[in-house]
Amino acid sequence: MTVASDSPFQFVGNETWAQGYWRLADWQFSAQQTLSFLKAHLDLGVSIGDHADIYGDYRCEQLFGNALILDPSVRHQFHVVTKCDIQLVSSSNSVSINHYDTSAKHIVSSVERSLERLQIEHIDTLLLHRPDLLMDVDEVIACFTRLRAEGKVGAFGVSNFSASQFELLNHRFDGQLVTNQVELNPLNFDAFENGITDRLQMAAVRPMAWSCLAGGSLFNAQTEQAQRVVGCLRELAIKYETSLEGVAYAWVIRHPSKPLVINGSGKLNRLASAMEQSKISLSREDWYRVWVASKGHGVP
Amino acid sequence: MTVASDSPFQFVGNETWAQGYWRLADWQFSAQQTLSFLKAHLDLGVSIGDHADIYGDYRCEQLFGNALILDPSVRHQFHVVTKCDIQLVSSSNSVSINHYDTSAKHIVSSVERSLERLQIEHIDTLLLHRPDLLMDVDEVIACFTRLRAEGKVGAFGVSNFSASQFELLNHRFDGQLVTNQVELNPLNFDAFENGITDRLQMAAVRPMAWSCLAGGSLFNAQTEQAQRVVGCLRELAIKYETSLEGVAYAWVIRHPSKPLVINGSGKLNRLASAMEQSKISLSREDWYRVWVASKGHGVP
Amino acid sequence: MTVASDSPFQFVGNETWAQGYWRLADWQFSAQQTLSFLKAHLDLGVSIGDHADIYGDYRCEQLFGNALILDPSVRHQFHVVTKCDIQLVSSSNSVSINHYDTSAKHIVSSVERSLERLQIEHIDTLLLHRPDLLMDVDEVIACFTRLRAEGKVGAFGVSNFSASQFELLNHRFDGQLVTNQVELNPLNFDAFENGITDRLQMAAVRPMAWSCLAGGSLFNAQTEQAQRVVGCLRELAIKYETSLEGVAYAWVIRHPSKPLVINGSGKLNRLASAMEQSKISLSREDWYRVWVASKGHGVP
Repeated sequence: MTVASDSPFQFVGNETWAQGYWRLADWQFSAQQTLSFLKAHLDLGVSIGDHADIYGDYRCEQLFGNALILDPSVRHQFHVVTKCDIQLVSSSNSVSINHYDTSAKHIVSSVERSLERLQIEHIDTLLLHRPDLLMDVDEVIACFTRLRAEGKVGAFGVSNFSASQFELLNHRFDGQLVTNQVELNPLNFDAFENGITDRLQMAAVRPMAWSCLAGGSLFNAQTEQAQRVVGCLRELAIKYETSLEGVAYAWVIRHPSKPLVINGSGKLNRLASAMEQSKISLSREDWYRVWVASKGHGVP
Repeated sequence: MTVASDSPFQFVGNETWAQGYWRLADWQFSAQQTLSFLKAHLDLGVSIGDHADIYGDYRCEQLFGNALILDPSVRHQFHVVTKCDIQLVSSSNSVSINHYDTSAKHIVSSVERSLERLQIEHIDTLLLHRPDLLMDVDEVIACFTRLRAEGKVGAFGVSNFSASQFELLNHRFDGQLVTNQVELNPLNFDAFENGITDRLQMAAVRPMAWSCLAGGSLFNAQTEQAQRVVGCLRELAIKYETSLEGVAYAWVIRHPSKPLVINGSGKLNRLASAMEQSKISLSREDWYRVWVASKGHGVP
Repeated sequence: MTVASDSPFQFVGNETWAQGYWRLADWQFSAQQTLSFLKAHLDLGVSIGDHADIYGDYRCEQLFGNALILDPSVRHQFHVVTKCDIQLVSSSNSVSINHYDTSAKHIVSSVERSLERLQIEHIDTLLLHRPDLLMDVDEVIACFTRLRAEGKVGAFGVSNFSASQFELLNHRFDGQLVTNQVELNPLNFDAFENGITDRLQMAAVRPMAWSCLAGGSLFNAQTEQAQRVVGCLRELAIKYETSLEGVAYAWVIRHPSKPLVINGSGKLNRLASAMEQSKISLSREDWYRVWVASKGHGVP
């Protein structure tokens, strides 16, 4: 593998899956149902929960926290990832235009609100959600350092950063960033080609992968590209005796940067089957079959 | 701030403005008028004069020099920046096609002619004007080193270099480049996104920003993008009780790479008012309002 | 020059030309004719032979080897470069889709087959032919290290790698990569602009240049761009009293990254005349004349 064994991103040392909670508010779960879901995926070995302050119009963290406090023993089995820096127009704030904010003031207040909503004392990993062109690197790092010293956050990463943006922040932060969470799926794997995952491998940390199923485009193929890819994934699903979804996840997981993939569904059987169905040894030929279907031409 | 306090780009340690002289020949100033203009902007605290050998078909440096010698006391209040490496077809030379030339021979002769025309003994900062694909890095650095040893040039930078081109030259030059002068305005801020300003921040030096008013496009909006941006800047000008121009400059200045902006007008009141009118605390929301107007869509 | 004198790419320390063998199977040479050709270009000072396992549907290496064994004294005058990692659909294998393969297993077996076909004991330089998105950097480096320890390969490089892909592999390999073989000609010099040759110069190694004549497009100009470039090259050929081909090669060779150009023709007089006809001191103005013809606009 290409991630150093002493990677700071220890929490995903050997894990492949995280559970995403961005649709938690849509699932219409009671707190008890959420707790059951959460325990169930812990039982599957998925201990990383991926949040962001803004998910569900700033409500998902709270719903998660409401479940967590029903059984305090669960908290310590969990690695909580959450994000900040997107300022979203919402009835719950006075923001007048969606924008990004990496000021120390906003990061700190966002962390404090996340801790309150999640009803925990410590965020395991905090990510900057989007690259803010106004990011003052020194201010961010001083803020990160203080949040860690205060015990409010354990580790720091970013999301959707370019290779260059990652390098700037990571360089100043003495290489302590633990991940860059990026979109990765058979319809969009720019991050494999534009230097993002190269840079992560140079830093010996793993990407987290969002939208591995291309936001549903793999189930409702609207473009020629999607139709080609779905056709290819279906053939491979038959060959490997698995599902289209399983092949899509396996395709992302196969990359040497060792992406940690995020499941977005709130149906436990979807997670369980995705985990099971992606346990295939996708051959190089078949990996490139998907590449060719996505690009619409053979390899050069 | 993200520029180290021991930045080699000391001359702009705390300055925000430079005066550009590329249109000096158009202003139809007598030497005395030029001297008055020059003293007046020194009085405003603007001590950096931005030149290039080619400005005004190789005439602007001379016009500046003709003013400077009228009052030798002024020279030492000035930080003279000039540029070389563009070879322009002109009645004053035998160049047959516009091209770039970073040969030691051309750099040295260009510096000597600039010193003569400017009628000074020392160029404070010399910039390579455009990235020359034929640039021999070792030859350039040997040339820079000699020019500095001879007292002809104090510091060196570049202009319009990509992040990678800057990194190559700066790496070989032991990190001594002091700036990269690039286009930056609300219609074109590629340098904020393509790694150029990331790389400058990594090197702990500041960009110089040319064309902050988009070459006049903000006053005569011909494209849909320009019309959106102008509409947005006008609204913000009203809100902040300032001018469209003031908001445009403030927008560039707000970036954490701390751009040193270059005024191009020869009307002192334009410079004075631009300096005054840009002294607004542009909020993050409003900065992103301009971003959205420029892109034509909200932040992702 | 911009390549350090202690470059690991010693084998091309002062050489400009390599002989490519990708069309050897088309030349219809007997083994004796191949040997004669090979001795003849050695006599011209061209001692680098550029191969790849796949050339001629996996047949060219064998044809070369069949000639080499006719006169064992020739081997040691030769620097053999070959490549691996493209898996091509062929009657000689069971590959079902063209793809890339940088697994240690494939590299080793490819090297062993190349040694057999070339009928030599040692590949001087082995290149990864195309960037494989599934490349496991640690696996590749362990494999390279073993191949070198076993005496099977002397040095390692890549081909068609982006700046970022080169940097990742070279960084992990302690800067031991010796080249990146890329397309370079007056119709396509992306590598001069996108950071590839910047990165090579930072690493103090030289590119190898393939397709310097743009795959024949310079002799049969089908696009407006090609017509402009051919027109320009023809004028320069007259001016420099040489051939269009000579100017094209000289244009690539003029770049400060010091490209090692690869001749693809099997006609000795073509190679001899290309070498001779490219020995012109192309002026900067004329170099940029070709640039302008290729871009269709003047320099900015």
